[in-house]
Amino acid sequence: MKIVKQSEVVKQTVEMEGVKGVQRQLMIGSKDGAPNFSFRIFTIHGNGHTPYHTHEFEHVNYALKGKGYIVDADGNENEFNEGDFAIIPPNEKHQFRNASKFKKFAMICAVTKDYE
Amino acid sequence: MKIVKQSEVVKQTVEMEGVKGVQRQLMIGSKDGAPNFSFRIFTIHGNGHTPYHTHEFEHVNYALKGKGYIVDADGNENEFNEGDFAIIPPNEKHQFRNASKFKKFAMICAVTKDYE
Repeated sequence: MKIVKQSEVVKQTVEMEGVKGVQRQLMIGSKDGAPNFSFRIFTIHGNGHTPYHTHEFEHVNYALKGKGYIVDADGNENEFNEGDFAIIPPNEKHQFRNASKFKKFAMICAVTKDYE
Repeated sequence: MKIVKQSEVVKQTVEMEGVKGVQRQLMIGSKDGAPNFSFRIFTIHGNGHTPYHTHEFEHVNYALKGKGYIVDADGNENEFNEGDFAIIPPNEKHQFRNASKFKKFAMICAVTKDYE
């Protein structure tokens, strides 16, 4: 059994094409003995976003803080706000965007361990 | 892509030996096309707890609200409070307890889909 506090985990800047103002914390993963899937926090700063992309694994998400959008495969913005859950199935194009210019948006993004 | 609000999912009372005052919501699971793992919310009412038990699958947790404890395999109470993450590995004895007599404790409890 292991309990991990957010202040204990370093925020790493995500450097990837199509990313703006995003930091990542691996809260629970292989390092903690997670055998199948991992919990990360993504913090998206004001006006920031993840890439508009696809990949072969799913995301399961929980919006921790702030207001955001999930851009779906058709390019539509869907409100994704503090307290909401979401799933992006494998191979579906998606993007997470902060809806605010100034405030942070943060979410849990869970993935299978091969993609943590 | 699917977004699910907490108010949209029915709270089911958990009826199992060793449980007191616990409700469960399946927020994201097989029903939503989750291929590998599921997110549930467990709400533990004042003085409530889950069973002190073991099983062959892991829990990955996020404390959404309130103050709780995780009782570990040695019987020790470990503080598990709003904003904290945790992992219970497979086959490790554990129990989640609400630390308050009156206020709710709520957490995300993720499991592989066979055990959702």
